[in-house]
Amino acid sequence: MTLLLLMGLVPLSLLLWVLHAPFAILFTVTGMAILPLAYLMGLSTEELGKHVGPGLGGLLNASFGNATEIIIAIAALRAGLLRLVQASITGSIIGNILLILGLSMFAGGLRYRKQSFERKAATTRSTMLALATIGLVVPSLLVISSPEAVLPETIRSMSIWISVLLLVAYGGGLLFSLHTHRHIFNPRGEEEEPEWSKGFAVLVLSLATAVVAVLSEVLIEAVEASIDELGLNELFLGVVVIAVIGNAAEHSSAVMLAWRNKMNLSVGIAASSSAQIALFAAPFLVFASLLIGNPMTLAFELFELIAIGLSVAVVSAVANDGESNWFEGLMLLIVYAIVAVGFFFLP
Amino acid sequence: MTLLLLMGLVPLSLLLWVLHAPFAILFTVTGMAILPLAYLMGLSTEELGKHVGPGLGGLLNASFGNATEIIIAIAALRAGLLRLVQASITGSIIGNILLILGLSMFAGGLRYRKQSFERKAATTRSTMLALATIGLVVPSLLVISSPEAVLPETIRSMSIWISVLLLVAYGGGLLFSLHTHRHIFNPRGEEEEPEWSKGFAVLVLSLATAVVAVLSEVLIEAVEASIDELGLNELFLGVVVIAVIGNAAEHSSAVMLAWRNKMNLSVGIAASSSAQIALFAAPFLVFASLLIGNPMTLAFELFELIAIGLSVAVVSAVANDGESNWFEGLMLLIVYAIVAVGFFFLP
Amino acid sequence: MTLLLLMGLVPLSLLLWVLHAPFAILFTVTGMAILPLAYLMGLSTEELGKHVGPGLGGLLNASFGNATEIIIAIAALRAGLLRLVQASITGSIIGNILLILGLSMFAGGLRYRKQSFERKAATTRSTMLALATIGLVVPSLLVISSPEAVLPETIRSMSIWISVLLLVAYGGGLLFSLHTHRHIFNPRGEEEEPEWSKGFAVLVLSLATAVVAVLSEVLIEAVEASIDELGLNELFLGVVVIAVIGNAAEHSSAVMLAWRNKMNLSVGIAASSSAQIALFAAPFLVFASLLIGNPMTLAFELFELIAIGLSVAVVSAVANDGESNWFEGLMLLIVYAIVAVGFFFLP
Repeated sequence: MTLLLLMGLVPLSLLLWVLHAPFAILFTVTGMAILPLAYLMGLSTEELGKHVGPGLGGLLNASFGNATEIIIAIAALRAGLLRLVQASITGSIIGNILLILGLSMFAGGLRYRKQSFERKAATTRSTMLALATIGLVVPSLLVISSPEAVLPETIRSMSIWISVLLLVAYGGGLLFSLHTHRHIFNPRGEEEEPEWSKGFAVLVLSLATAVVAVLSEVLIEAVEASIDELGLNELFLGVVVIAVIGNAAEHSSAVMLAWRNKMNLSVGIAASSSAQIALFAAPFLVFASLLIGNPMTLAFELFELIAIGLSVAVVSAVANDGESNWFEGLMLLIVYAIVAVGFFFLP
Repeated sequence: MTLLLLMGLVPLSLLLWVLHAPFAILFTVTGMAILPLAYLMGLSTEELGKHVGPGLGGLLNASFGNATEIIIAIAALRAGLLRLVQASITGSIIGNILLILGLSMFAGGLRYRKQSFERKAATTRSTMLALATIGLVVPSLLVISSPEAVLPETIRSMSIWISVLLLVAYGGGLLFSLHTHRHIFNPRGEEEEPEWSKGFAVLVLSLATAVVAVLSEVLIEAVEASIDELGLNELFLGVVVIAVIGNAAEHSSAVMLAWRNKMNLSVGIAASSSAQIALFAAPFLVFASLLIGNPMTLAFELFELIAIGLSVAVVSAVANDGESNWFEGLMLLIVYAIVAVGFFFLP
Repeated sequence: MTLLLLMGLVPLSLLLWVLHAPFAILFTVTGMAILPLAYLMGLSTEELGKHVGPGLGGLLNASFGNATEIIIAIAALRAGLLRLVQASITGSIIGNILLILGLSMFAGGLRYRKQSFERKAATTRSTMLALATIGLVVPSLLVISSPEAVLPETIRSMSIWISVLLLVAYGGGLLFSLHTHRHIFNPRGEEEEPEWSKGFAVLVLSLATAVVAVLSEVLIEAVEASIDELGLNELFLGVVVIAVIGNAAEHSSAVMLAWRNKMNLSVGIAASSSAQIALFAAPFLVFASLLIGNPMTLAFELFELIAIGLSVAVVSAVANDGESNWFEGLMLLIVYAIVAVGFFFLP
């Protein structure tokens, strides 16, 4: 019901866009119009996931949530909003591991005193994230430690080399989780009977993805105008607002799964989604930006690095024992809130 | 015997204060006079703890040790010694997790080859500490990264927002450890028969706390004069000297408990004391400082942040397996010594 | 066969040195001439290790690998190449925990789906490394945070104090691993029958060590000339090139052992070698440099600190569960590659 109501925002958003409505309204409506589609994507991915098992299902969930983000990012790259793209990468990594995982553990913990998940799968993901963090730290540190001594070309070629290394790690991770050690990521016992047929799930998924792609273009146009005219903080917009909208699909499905005590799937979505952003989307966008002609590097701001690094550290502490409870969820949410306060006040 | 001897320092301290004795002597005598009272507080809290079980007992221990510190801090805030208060917060966090835990593990490890404690309780505490560290990193980083671009009001409102979030985390932690998951913090098997009655323990505790409060005022006066006249390093005084005196109660009782192989209680004191300083005392003092009219923020110095961050990382590595030995204790003590050397030489 | 062929490079290196050959050729030939000797040292240490058990065997392996490095470092100190020595300390720590451990886990993981090792031994080593990292962070941070306010003598006395503390930790670690808790480091079941007699192993080890010492002198002379004449990056040379040559012995034996599924020995070599560099070689070189008259401090560059800190964090995440697989090895190798890219581009 709410779903259908919210779906009505899709034509409204396009109408407002055609009518050149004020940007604040266009932005709000478009952002909200993406949410039901993200929910549909989550639902259809979950159905599809039931046909293929939790490991591959988690990857599917992550891919289609991240497809949205990559499309939004490409629109932003074309508009030259390089900082916004970097900020939305930061925000997606942090949002997945703090907000999604936090909400899932908190919601699940309200119903179950203790929830368990496969330790080894979670720690492998958090090591992948730590690796990706190092990939972002290295070029950023070079810029931060000697801003005037480093040539832009140096940062650019460094970013390309590191992007290649991150993609190798990503490829290795796929081989590991889908082939050589898939038993870790695909344990027995949490499978559910699918309610949709495979074909119907694919159809809904494709349609929702296509509409999200169109709305993303409208969204970025509204964001661009807001920055120009209202002087909004590009970093905060990217880290918090864009990243939350872009990850709404994972949010809804991960929390739903935690509520039904399917913690392996829930943690799998949050962890593999953030690892995929860091190891696949970030280097992919570095190469895409070269083709588009607005080259983006992996040199992030100090505050972004610290926020990512601390989030990865907190999440590996929490995930390390393969158990969760409501208070661990609450702690992740509070860390997210603290970091969001930081980005809000950043000059 | 030594106890009674040291108790004689209490009237001596007050006498010296009335007679306007040289500050170095006043400081030393007052600091030493607090120690036997801290020991009495430790003893009576331990007795009281036996009536209520290890989880709540650990909290009691921590609260009454920290009551002293908060009173010292309020005296210092009134005297305008904001840096000293921040430094004593840093020193208490570091001191609890490195010095107290290190001494406990070292002393206990001399008698027992291996000592065990409840893993989940220790890691929950260390995650709370990591969260609090992030709460300190965010405002500090803003000041460090762009000292002139950030307005004092921005830092102030940021500190207030983050203080609220830290208090929410603290409240959640109390609910978790005393209500929903108290079985983790209150395991069977380490209870001892109390030797004092509940009423006598409360009486001793109250008296000792009151006298400590009076002596704290004298102590701060002596510290203030030493800084003004002798040009001592405010940061080193706060981090090492004040924090050690303020935490002497926890020191003595935690080490005593480890010596008697009650590691759950011992680790509980050190871990919950440092978590309480970070999540309760620090935000409490931010609000208290507003009322007093000398507003303190959560913007700490870079070296303090790094020291807290590294201490939390080392302690979670050590606590992570629920076992300790003398060498783990020694390593914590050496890390404390290295950090103290740093604060000593800091310009 | 390859061994004998490469051994021919030893006289060739000395000949080139006498003939004043171009430095690039002299450097390459000498570097390669050290490799077979390092292999021989590895082999004879391994044989000797079989006579004394894995714990002491791991220490032996590490000591003789590090004897080489200390001799190279002393030659460099005499030549006044202080940055090169610091960089080779950084490179040895990083190289041992990322490159050697990574290669071992990767190679071993190609043959075995999962390899196990003694958790407690590995985590004790990684805590020792974290402690040593803090010992390097403290003086460096002082220099970084206020470069002009800190006097060189302050850094020097601070480095000496911290060196003493690191040596105490090292001594404690020896007492712990060889005496009070040797059962952790010397578990049953991986012993092999020695193929060489104890005497023969000692003889080969001594000869190889002596020849490596002579070649190290030649190597440093070539390095010095390359920096002067070719303007090569001293940091990159030290961190990557010198450190790889200096650790070739541990490389070959650790990887061989992992290939034969003796993960306790393999992890023991990598972990104790890096801990020994950080806790013994670094403070030893601080004192040696005072005698030589070119005082070296423990103040490293920011990028070195971050690289060491992140490597230690990643490796404790990987070692934490006492299991390894090919993908964990690959991730360590990729982190090494990312860090090497950073040092290559550093201005």
